[in-house]
Formats: sequence, structure tokens, C-alpha cells
Amino acid sequence: MAVQSADTGRTTGTPTGTTGSVTTASGTVDLGPAAALSCRECGERFPLGPIFACTSCFGPLEVAYDLPLGDPEALRRKIESGPTNLWRYAPLLPVPADVADKPNLNPGWTKLVKADRLAAELGITGGLYVKDDSGNPTHSFKDRVVAQAVEAARAFGFTTLSCSSTGNLAGAVGAAAARAGFRSCVFIPHDLEQGKVVMAAVYGGDLVGIEGTYDDVNRFCSELIGDPIGEGWGFVNVNLRPYYGEGSKTLAYEICEQLGWRLPDQLVIPIASGSQLTKVDKGLQELIKLGLVEEKPYKIFGAQAEGCSPVSTAFKAGHEVVRPQRPDTIAKSLAIGNPADGPYVLDIAHRTGGAVEDVTDAQIVDAIKLLARTEGIFTETAGGVTVGVTKKLVEAGVLDPELTTVVLNTGDGLKTLDAVAPTTGPTATIRPSLDAFRAAGLAG
Amino acid sequence: MAVQSADTGRTTGTPTGTTGSVTTASGTVDLGPAAALSCRECGERFPLGPIFACTSCFGPLEVAYDLPLGDPEALRRKIESGPTNLWRYAPLLPVPADVADKPNLNPGWTKLVKADRLAAELGITGGLYVKDDSGNPTHSFKDRVVAQAVEAARAFGFTTLSCSSTGNLAGAVGAAAARAGFRSCVFIPHDLEQGKVVMAAVYGGDLVGIEGTYDDVNRFCSELIGDPIGEGWGFVNVNLRPYYGEGSKTLAYEICEQLGWRLPDQLVIPIASGSQLTKVDKGLQELIKLGLVEEKPYKIFGAQAEGCSPVSTAFKAGHEVVRPQRPDTIAKSLAIGNPADGPYVLDIAHRTGGAVEDVTDAQIVDAIKLLARTEGIFTETAGGVTVGVTKKLVEAGVLDPELTTVVLNTGDGLKTLDAVAPTTGPTATIRPSLDAFRAAGLAG
Repeated sequence: MAVQSADTGRTTGTPTGTTGSVTTASGTVDLGPAAALSCRECGERFPLGPIFACTSCFGPLEVAYDLPLGDPEALRRKIESGPTNLWRYAPLLPVPADVADKPNLNPGWTKLVKADRLAAELGITGGLYVKDDSGNPTHSFKDRVVAQAVEAARAFGFTTLSCSSTGNLAGAVGAAAARAGFRSCVFIPHDLEQGKVVMAAVYGGDLVGIEGTYDDVNRFCSELIGDPIGEGWGFVNVNLRPYYGEGSKTLAYEICEQLGWRLPDQLVIPIASGSQLTKVDKGLQELIKLGLVEEKPYKIFGAQAEGCSPVSTAFKAGHEVVRPQRPDTIAKSLAIGNPADGPYVLDIAHRTGGAVEDVTDAQIVDAIKLLARTEGIFTETAGGVTVGVTKKLVEAGVLDPELTTVVLNTGDGLKTLDAVAPTTGPTATIRPSLDAFRAAGLAG
Repeated sequence: MAVQSADTGRTTGTPTGTTGSVTTASGTVDLGPAAALSCRECGERFPLGPIFACTSCFGPLEVAYDLPLGDPEALRRKIESGPTNLWRYAPLLPVPADVADKPNLNPGWTKLVKADRLAAELGITGGLYVKDDSGNPTHSFKDRVVAQAVEAARAFGFTTLSCSSTGNLAGAVGAAAARAGFRSCVFIPHDLEQGKVVMAAVYGGDLVGIEGTYDDVNRFCSELIGDPIGEGWGFVNVNLRPYYGEGSKTLAYEICEQLGWRLPDQLVIPIASGSQLTKVDKGLQELIKLGLVEEKPYKIFGAQAEGCSPVSTAFKAGHEVVRPQRPDTIAKSLAIGNPADGPYVLDIAHRTGGAVEDVTDAQIVDAIKLLARTEGIFTETAGGVTVGVTKKLVEAGVLDPELTTVVLNTGDGLKTLDAVAPTTGPTATIRPSLDAFRAAGLAG
């Protein structure tokens, strides 16, 4: 059975059945329904392996599947009887069928919160939901993508997990490696805040501070991959990137299943590299092709911080290329000035009738507090971006308030306390007496 | 139908059926199977209401139920088809049957992690599990108890949620009140660390710093409850305490269900007030009486920090009373020097053949790192206490390594970064070059 790739429209199936077992230089690789890698630009196919760029055109590679195009009802039942984590979708992911039995942090199946109080404040009447990925093991959506990378690393016989990071990813890789029994070696700029260093180091892997900027860290990692030192190393977001990226599809799967196997009308998704947004779209397209949801139009909106808004700037100017920017925003987990998937994000926003918008740092802080005050969800700055952009899009009449809307919360406020600390404190400080309480005007 | 209270052995059922609707001064109160409050000491019964102490003997009140003693198979199916949060157990909790439709943070159904790598380090061969409550909405088990208090507050017509707190509870109450649409007013000592203040204040309720110690804060709250100002206020852990405490039973329910409706052989549970440990025991007893699990012996072990070890000190000395201590430990969320449920904890440890043990601050830090390094779970100091005590009990031959053991992780390391920060950092800091990497001895 074969399905068409959601992104290229090319047929990506092979006649090898649905197990996807592939023989590579390192032996037989069982990554379930994953059949091959295919170039997103030219469509050329490659055997499954730790590669990430097309040898013909240098385009990014992504996983192509033999998806089970059988009875949707049977597939739906199989998923619903699966574990309450992202492995319930194992038949649709590049992982072996017995993945749930292997040591992994098992993220996913986070709450889809019906956000009625936030909806009332924003004037949304068609139903507003927050997909709250702060419930993941290390409290960000990164656990989803790293969980996939771990299984790919296992399949390829790697023994070390690695990445460059300034935050969420470092913790996610450190924790996942610890759980799965890999060595980890994570690279960070040497001058990170102590809190982030502790979060990355506590899992006991090697954590290496690099004297230089985040760009220097990245360049050094590329050197390592090309050097014999890096043999046996899986860099989750470099040589394992095609597998890693597939984890974001599970956000789309979960949202639709939690809505009762129904597509939402509108989604608002933050943009860093843009990978998450493109993979959510890929996931929605797969659900349609598999017959798990009824096809209908949906709009995807991208959210950026004004201080790092290369994609929204391009969108508003009507450009098809994304001009790099030097980031300057409190939303550090979104601060990628030259987003790899920027052009694909523009395509998707145009194709679905969505848009890309940005908000200021002050609006980010306000949005963090708005979400906390209305729904009891304390998000990090990236979530402030997404909620803030949602508000702005409703006010501008771009987002239709009468349609079902899902907003992604990808991280946790405990990791970016500094963003709200200067403006968040006690209502009053008083002596322990009823008179003092009354005098403070708090007696109601 | 009637069941006996797990704790007193007295029959607590009434002939009013299973709805538990009770008429109080504030009208009809629907708290599902909750039939009455009963005194833990003398057994006297009271109508459901916002009261917490027996008027005859001043003993603590707890919820008595008309539990559904019908076909266990039907009840099990009902639970299994319920939501993936603690409301799957609504038939066994003091909440209305339609609780899942009301705005609540819906905590629970957190992961029961099979901890094979930790087990190997500790020498446990019979199966070791970590019940990881850091996955709750505000990342501690407090969300469970506050979720119950919210529903009781709603039933009693309260409009303000309140508590005194130095940490996890403040955030849990602030978040839950925001979500459920209550006003909140939380009291803290004025000199808390800024991070904790931010976590408590961000949800937008009133946060009041009290010039004094935590004891002063508590005394002031008692004054408020007795004053007309406090009318309409639900103090989650004072006048709503009987309902609040029931939330901890869900830990027992989930553990058994996640083990395949089976009792574990041994549980290790941290002790602050001791309420959690006693309610987990109550939950296990209820499952046995309802026929949801097969009866068999289990042992409950309590864990304290040496710097606040009134219960373990009493246990080791063979005392039946608990002598108060002045706390001095990094495990601040367990630092209750005069634990209300201390004597009940001693009873349970003796009755089940368990024990109570304590560990030093240094052992707590080591245990936090051990859990992070082996399972990728970053726990707060309270979790370090529980894992550390587990290790100590295995080494002492008190905990049987050949039996199935469940350790409770009740909180999140992001909230107590200071505990590990001084000893957790980069392996190395280097220039971005392969030579520097090799020179640092990291090339493997």
C-alpha cells in the first residue's frame, strides 16, 4: 500500500509491505511503516539511514511511509486501545511496532484544554482549545521529537545522543538519553544562565560549554559529525533530523483524536525553525488520506516574536523567500533568525488561507499572564507569542472567532521565570492582623 | 450499600442510596458517593459541610461514602472508559457524577514509570516503579488534592479559594482557582524566594505576603476563617481539608490500575503532614473492599528528611506519639515539624509491616541525581527524600528487593533548582575546536 507524501504530492510507497524493514550498512533497520527517506525538494528517495540532505539537490530529507490504507475504523480502534502517550500512533511513525516496550520517556497525549475563559476574553465563540505540551516529561514539545530520535538512534546502532541547544532541547536530550541508556553529550554556549545549565546537566550526561555564540556551537557540532570522533553519535536535530521532525506530527494526531476525530478549523502554531508547523500540517494531511478524519478546509497561522520575525516579515511583504534576522526577543526558544523551514511555512499559510503574525515582547508578557489568569496554565515565552498572536489576529479580523481554534502551548513558564518576574509579585505585604488585611483593601 | 471506613472499621454507609445528595444550610450538596463526614477518632457522623474537626472530641473529620458495592467488573469497565485524568475515579470520590464537565485543571493519570535502570542500581529485582506526579498541571501532587477542594468549594457555594503555603500549594491553588473561575487569595511568608513568589502570583489572584514566619501565616488564616471577612472562603487545607485529602487516594487507584488492577507489594511515600500516606492506604483498602483488586499483603514505608524527621524518629524509638521538631532541611515541601497525621502514619507502618526512615540533605541531593541519571526524571527535594530512603531501606535489608515496589515522586526539580545547582554544571568548557574537545578527554 502506498500513500502520497503530504508535502510533495509524490507517491512514496514501496511494494515492501507495511513493516518497513530496510537493510542498510548497519544491518536491518526496523522503523515500522517508514519505507525510505525522500527529498522534499526533488523527491529523490534514499534508504533509511542517518542522513539529512539530498545528495542531488541538497534539499532536506523527510520520512516517506507505507501507511496502512486499510479500514480506517480498524486503525482508529487500534489507536484508541493503545497507550496514553505518543506511541498510540506507532503505526504512523518511524518506529518499530514494539516501541512501547522500549525504555523511552513516552511523551505525548497531553491535555487539549477547552479554554472557555480565555475564549471569552478574546471574543472567540466557535470553541477555543489549548494543546498544552507543558505536560510532557521535561515540560516542552521537544520531548516528542527527541523520543523519535531516540528510536532512530537505537535502530542505527548509535550509542551517544547529542545536540546543540540553548534551552529546552538540552534538557529533553539529557533526560531521554538517561532513560534509554545512551551516553549523551550536549553542547551549549558557555554563558547560559545557571538555571538552564542545571536543567541540562542534572541528567548526568556530558554537558560541554563552548566559548562562543550559539552559531559557534552549531558550527562545532557540524565539524564533529564529519570527524571520526562523531562516529556512533546521533545529533538529534542534524543527522537524525528526518526522524526527529516526525514527532511533531503527533500534535496533529492528538488534537484531532481529542476533538473526536475531527479537524479543527484554525490552528495557531509558534515558529522557530518552522519544522513544527510544517509537520503538524503533514500530520493533518495524513489523517485525511487515511480516512481517520473527514476532509474539510483548515487554516494554519504562524506566530513569531517581533524581535525575531523573519517569516512574518516575509509573509506581510508578500515575499517567497525569508530574509535572515538577528534575533532580539525574550522568546529565546523561538529565536532562530534564519529558519530552515521558513519557505515551507509561507507555502502552508498561503495554501490553507492562514497568515503569519508577530507580537512585541510586552505583548508576549501580557499574553503569558492572560493565559495564566484565565486558564491556570503558566506558559513560557513561546506560549506567550502564540496566545498573543491569536489575540492580535482576532482583533484584526484575520482569525474567525466563530470557528473552532486550537492554540499550541509548547513549553513551561517555570523555564522562563525572568520574563514575568519584574511585573509579577504580591498584591500586598502586611502584618498578620485582620485590621492590616482590611486596610489593604483585600477584604472583598 | 455501605462499606466500612478503612481507617476506623466503623460502618459508614447510610440508607440514602448512592447519590450522596445532602441538604445543608447552603442547600442541596451533590458530592457523588460522599454520604457524610465522620470523625476519625470517635466515629461521630456529620452532614457534608465545610467543617474539619469533630465537635465532640476535636478529632479530624474525613469523608464517609456509600460506595457502589456492585459488580466489580462493571465498575472497572466504567473507570477504564473514563477520562485520562483523576475523574475516571469519580464514582469513588466526593464529587458529582458530571465533574468532568466542569472547569478544573483535571490532574492525575500521571505516568507509572517502570524504572529498570534505577532498579539495577539499587539492586531491586522484583520490579521498581516511579509514580511520577511531576506530570500534573502545576507539576506536583498538590493538583490532585486542590482539584477535590475546588469541587467541594463549588458545592458549598464558596467564591474565594485560599490557603497558606510556602511553595507547591500556592501555585496549585492559584492555577486551579483561575481555571475554575474562583477568586483566590493565597498567603505566604513575605520573605519567600522570588521564583516561588512569581509561580504563586502569575495566575492573577491575590497573593499576600505576611510579615512573619510560616506559623504566623497559619495563625492569621485561622483568624480569617473565624471572622466575617472569611465568609464564602474555602481554605483548601483547613475548612475543605476532609475533601482535599481525598485527592491523594487517586494515587493508590492509579498505581493499582496501571499495574493491571493489582496491589504492589511495597510503597515508599514521603511524609509532610502524613496525610498523603494515610490516604493512599485508605485508597488501597477501598479497592480491596470493592473487589477491584485481589486482597494481599502490602507494606507502606514512610520517607522523611533527617532535618525534619519527627515521624521516623518516633518509629525508630518505638513511640506511639510524635514529638514536634524544628525543621532544618532542604526538603522544604516536607518540612512540617508537627505532622497532623503522624500517629496514623505510625499505625499504618506497623499494621502493614513497613517502616519510616530518613535521609540527610546530602543523600537527598545524591538521590535527585541518581533518579535523573537513571530514568531521566528530575525530581524536587521531596522526591530525593523518597528515592534516598528507598536506597537506604534496601541496603538495610528492610525493603525486600525481590518484591514489586512503587516509589512516589510528588514534585518537580525545576522548583528546587537550588538544591542541586552548587554541584551540577558542565563537564567541561572549551573553545570550539576538535583539538580542545579531544584535550578535554571527551572524545570517548
